[in-house]
Amino acid sequence: MSKHHVKQRASKAANPGQPTQGPLTHEELQLSGRNHSMPLEALHDDITPAGLHYLLIHFDIPHVSAETWRLRLSGAVNRSLELSLEDIKARPAVTMPVTLECAGNGRSLLQPRPVSQPWVLGAVGTAEWTGTPLAPLLEEAGLASDAVELVFTGADNGIQGGVEEPYARSLSVAEAMHPEVMLVYAMNGNPLPKQHGFPLRLLVPGWYGMASVKWLTSIEAVTSRFMGFQQAVAYHYLQGPDGPGIPVSHIRVRSLMIPPGIPDFYTRRRVVDAGPVMLHGRAWSGHGDVERVEVGIDGEWMPAHVDPPLGDFAWRRWSMVWVASPGEHVLRCRAMDTSGALQPTEQVWNYQGIGNNMAQVVEVTVR
Amino acid sequence: MSKHHVKQRASKAANPGQPTQGPLTHEELQLSGRNHSMPLEALHDDITPAGLHYLLIHFDIPHVSAETWRLRLSGAVNRSLELSLEDIKARPAVTMPVTLECAGNGRSLLQPRPVSQPWVLGAVGTAEWTGTPLAPLLEEAGLASDAVELVFTGADNGIQGGVEEPYARSLSVAEAMHPEVMLVYAMNGNPLPKQHGFPLRLLVPGWYGMASVKWLTSIEAVTSRFMGFQQAVAYHYLQGPDGPGIPVSHIRVRSLMIPPGIPDFYTRRRVVDAGPVMLHGRAWSGHGDVERVEVGIDGEWMPAHVDPPLGDFAWRRWSMVWVASPGEHVLRCRAMDTSGALQPTEQVWNYQGIGNNMAQVVEVTVR
Repeated sequence: MSKHHVKQRASKAANPGQPTQGPLTHEELQLSGRNHSMPLEALHDDITPAGLHYLLIHFDIPHVSAETWRLRLSGAVNRSLELSLEDIKARPAVTMPVTLECAGNGRSLLQPRPVSQPWVLGAVGTAEWTGTPLAPLLEEAGLASDAVELVFTGADNGIQGGVEEPYARSLSVAEAMHPEVMLVYAMNGNPLPKQHGFPLRLLVPGWYGMASVKWLTSIEAVTSRFMGFQQAVAYHYLQGPDGPGIPVSHIRVRSLMIPPGIPDFYTRRRVVDAGPVMLHGRAWSGHGDVERVEVGIDGEWMPAHVDPPLGDFAWRRWSMVWVASPGEHVLRCRAMDTSGALQPTEQVWNYQGIGNNMAQVVEVTVR
Repeated sequence: MSKHHVKQRASKAANPGQPTQGPLTHEELQLSGRNHSMPLEALHDDITPAGLHYLLIHFDIPHVSAETWRLRLSGAVNRSLELSLEDIKARPAVTMPVTLECAGNGRSLLQPRPVSQPWVLGAVGTAEWTGTPLAPLLEEAGLASDAVELVFTGADNGIQGGVEEPYARSLSVAEAMHPEVMLVYAMNGNPLPKQHGFPLRLLVPGWYGMASVKWLTSIEAVTSRFMGFQQAVAYHYLQGPDGPGIPVSHIRVRSLMIPPGIPDFYTRRRVVDAGPVMLHGRAWSGHGDVERVEVGIDGEWMPAHVDPPLGDFAWRRWSMVWVASPGEHVLRCRAMDTSGALQPTEQVWNYQGIGNNMAQVVEVTVR
């Protein structure tokens, strides 16, 4: 893969990747307007409509022609494969609800604030994805005995950290062979929208979204660890600028609440009428099943009712009736998964602003 | 309509509606993450996919059941009507490509910056809308001779400027009777997505998006001017906090360019390879047809080729080949419409940050 080092203008304000106490930058605003979150009221739906599902697009959305597009599977394999979209659709199909979340969800709430895509809380969504499992395809190609990773490369290209590269991520052979890892071509029963990777994307259920490479054009079996920017530099848990840190993989347990009542346009602060109020939302984890959800009312935690999961890799609905009394109240929610992980109530900071699953805070005025 | 005046917390930073030289606020970031723009590379498509079309949702997206939903047409009419979605779909149907743009598009580029939804440039989109013309329905109901306006009210409710109101806007009888004004229930051949107003929205082609009321529940003929917040306070061209100002209506002429080459992730700055580069984009106006598009290369303006319009109220594609030479360049584009209006190259400031159609600036590094 050729890498061109590109001169970049110095940003007038904060530098990308470097945490700051400073104000939000114009660059962060631009990213926020392009890469949209899921409005929290969309937690109402089991399956998120495509236009409300969160989107993170590192570079530009490429315009790919389904007719000329091919997926190439090559590298350390016994025989390379080149597949058309029809070839892939002719293979056994699986449809599965999967919750995807951006690893940077919650980043803008950290202090100091890592400067990158400035998510608040809505970088999540659950879709019904249709595709074909990856493992049988790898078995057809026949991985060489010294293959250690699969590198997944998209059609999107750009510059990050001064390096020009198409977007690419890798999985170990063992990770790629998991039965739930799929090549998907449909979302909620329709062809993949172009912003979600048309014609084909990888789907790695349970992992943060960066693993599910969009606009997939090649899968390459490699005999040494892939060191591309998105794999070796971005997406690490770090305490400072120096690595190596811990690579980001599975989604940390999180719950979110639909803010009750009505909003103020500008502040999004809530006003609720006194009396019984149904609080509800969703909870999910990539480290096991969600075992418990608790709602905090002014600091007192109470268990919520949790519905059955939609699927092995999809969120669970939770609900609780709160009898709201007039005045100012602070609502929170937190989930625990079967690995024993519980959402923290204070920030657990890291340098890239990854995996901030601190319990949501919803301030309400009851009248 | 009952109005509750609601106590609001003082924002720590800038106040909504008041221009500032200060930093972007957390509240602006929240709005930007909810209300997404169209990524500029989507100017590639004649018709914007629903998930890429810009969205401005003042309050929360309401969850409306199509079964129980009814549209009530009442007030100063000879006979009130109550219509189901099936009743409306049984009426004569029209499908039309219409470009919608938010009146606040470009707001965040103004100095000082009016504090509200902080659009950069992508608050636009063109969809194929299907619905039934409004005028025959008004004729069936029979407007009273003293009716002066129609008030269109949505199912979405919240607080803005300290006032609690459902979202509502009015049109004069003459404006509402225009043949292109429609009640629409489909977008790009599918039922209206919930974020675009399911099950029914008003569509006022040629006007900024605030007129096309979503989640429409009632149309009321009134005998005096409607003074709701969204009509009488918001959406005015003003030079300071004191009114009355000029009500906002039709879309000002604008052109936008797909930024060429590849982006840097954080700055979105472009890198282009030297040689011939196809520059292209779209241009539109609510004040007449687009007559001319010019591209500025380092301050020198040249005419672009302009394709035929998609429809009377939809954008036109434009294109120009630029022979890019190595170095730093500033690209701009500007359109002129048949009313003689030309996009300005410097900001024309107003207090609410409305209709900022200043010519786009795209900085590129050619290598």
